[in-house]
Amino acid sequence: MAPNEFALIRQLFHSARWRELNSTHPSCLLGPGDDCALVTPPPNEHIALSIDTALPGVHFPQGATGAQIAVRACSTALSDLAACGANPLGFLVAVQIPQLDEDFLHALSDGLYEVASHYSIPLLGGNMARGLLAVTVQVVGSTSAALRRDQAQEGDRIFVSGTLATAAAGLVKVRDDLHTEHPFAAAYWRPTPRIQLGMCLRGIASSAIDISDGLVQDVGHIAQASGLGAQLDRSALPVHPDVVAEYGSEQALLWAANAGDDYELCFTVPVDKIPLLHRNAPTFPPCVEIGHMVSGTGVYYMGEDSDIPASGYDHFASN
Amino acid sequence: MAPNEFALIRQLFHSARWRELNSTHPSCLLGPGDDCALVTPPPNEHIALSIDTALPGVHFPQGATGAQIAVRACSTALSDLAACGANPLGFLVAVQIPQLDEDFLHALSDGLYEVASHYSIPLLGGNMARGLLAVTVQVVGSTSAALRRDQAQEGDRIFVSGTLATAAAGLVKVRDDLHTEHPFAAAYWRPTPRIQLGMCLRGIASSAIDISDGLVQDVGHIAQASGLGAQLDRSALPVHPDVVAEYGSEQALLWAANAGDDYELCFTVPVDKIPLLHRNAPTFPPCVEIGHMVSGTGVYYMGEDSDIPASGYDHFASN
Repeated sequence: MAPNEFALIRQLFHSARWRELNSTHPSCLLGPGDDCALVTPPPNEHIALSIDTALPGVHFPQGATGAQIAVRACSTALSDLAACGANPLGFLVAVQIPQLDEDFLHALSDGLYEVASHYSIPLLGGNMARGLLAVTVQVVGSTSAALRRDQAQEGDRIFVSGTLATAAAGLVKVRDDLHTEHPFAAAYWRPTPRIQLGMCLRGIASSAIDISDGLVQDVGHIAQASGLGAQLDRSALPVHPDVVAEYGSEQALLWAANAGDDYELCFTVPVDKIPLLHRNAPTFPPCVEIGHMVSGTGVYYMGEDSDIPASGYDHFASN
Repeated sequence: MAPNEFALIRQLFHSARWRELNSTHPSCLLGPGDDCALVTPPPNEHIALSIDTALPGVHFPQGATGAQIAVRACSTALSDLAACGANPLGFLVAVQIPQLDEDFLHALSDGLYEVASHYSIPLLGGNMARGLLAVTVQVVGSTSAALRRDQAQEGDRIFVSGTLATAAAGLVKVRDDLHTEHPFAAAYWRPTPRIQLGMCLRGIASSAIDISDGLVQDVGHIAQASGLGAQLDRSALPVHPDVVAEYGSEQALLWAANAGDDYELCFTVPVDKIPLLHRNAPTFPPCVEIGHMVSGTGVYYMGEDSDIPASGYDHFASN
């Protein structure tokens, strides 16, 4: 990397606002600029780590701004920490970019800073290389008792936070107009990692996952990892009313069940801990019960044809 | 990602050998397959984190095998932990690949496993996406007392481990024949992260860095971060004798000073701790004194024209 690139990286990511953000985080011992960043985790906690790459045309539409890409990539990465019940300690970013587009990189830095400052987490390090656009975010958090996918028990109730289907509706809006400010588009570009909820679920939920692949598929991940099946109450899915109003209830329900990108938490709770959930969980986002874990395999809808797995449930006309 | 891709990822990275490797590491609480990996760091240690992307045509030659790319990317990432005096706890890998080339991915998995098993570190997680080839490795380690770049003091002696210039000579061999088994090529493809030496330097070295950009430039990073200058004894640089024999002493010395990719450790030691270094450092690789830190800025050669910074020292004919 040429000297002016080192200077630009310093300007973008070691600037006063980033240094101040790093200095205010109790765990950040050393930020970017050395061979490694150094973090001091809280005593007796586990470290949670996740890495994700976001690519144009795959994880976000071609032509997205640096800020859009950064906010979404950073938010979805933090959502993985939320799904583990972890408290974020910081993040690292590896950027590939075809040429040194300063405007794009400033927007990227702004987007990362927006999310980082909102959650008060330091940017611990990064890497920049020439190549086709790609943004890889690696998050690190800590937790005393991690939420996992593989600990659900038969009979546990399945809950989901917030409302569903807005991100899918948002993607439709974004495909019509990349820079639309429609509220659905915000749900797509700026998913809210459910950090507080995830931390609150420690000791309450028996398993958890964030909804990135679609509710049914993600419930399927919990079921498979736990060696169980799941039954969902289709009528209980918390479809966003504005999506129903605009696209009809069948399309909205299909999105709620099968579209990804909502980044709400889906989790299982043993029946005897449900009162604790209602007592301790934040009032926002609301968490609603949508089904329960059963013996067997696969994810099905209650009271409907048990030969049809929920993932293949396509008697809606639309898609 | 299509279901067969999930299956391939499981086959490649969650197979028995990886599960066994993960299960033997005391710090690995949960490997890949959940939202986050979980690591339990040793009590009262800091966490060291680094992320690096390797791209064809930039960080390794086009046409390199999956195994070559994996071994090099993983070894150089571990070298960042060595430079901090950290003990590796594990690593995560984000792979971009144009299509699902099973042979390439098996070779990549084999290469990662070779390094991971050699250092007994678990693969904690990963990500695979369609895109132009890129391999991003993120390493995590722990250390009670980190080596940094910014703590060198005036008068500290500068040391370097091992021998220099073999990686540059290796790159020449590789450019002639991508699959040569010449020993110089091994130095390029399989740099040895100096983990044991780095850990041994805790409490002895005042600063450290690994040589990725070239000795003079990396000494310059220490000097700049510490607010000092450096003087090097050009005749003391530990040039590999086989490189001298094949390419002549001037070319070898030029490579030793300015070529990257050797991944030896360069570090500073206060004079009163040099006996401790000689007592505690491993006998292999040997560490030799090559200069000292001075007030001022820049890196110069002792006894030569002080107007010429070492980085611009080009009176050798070759390049």
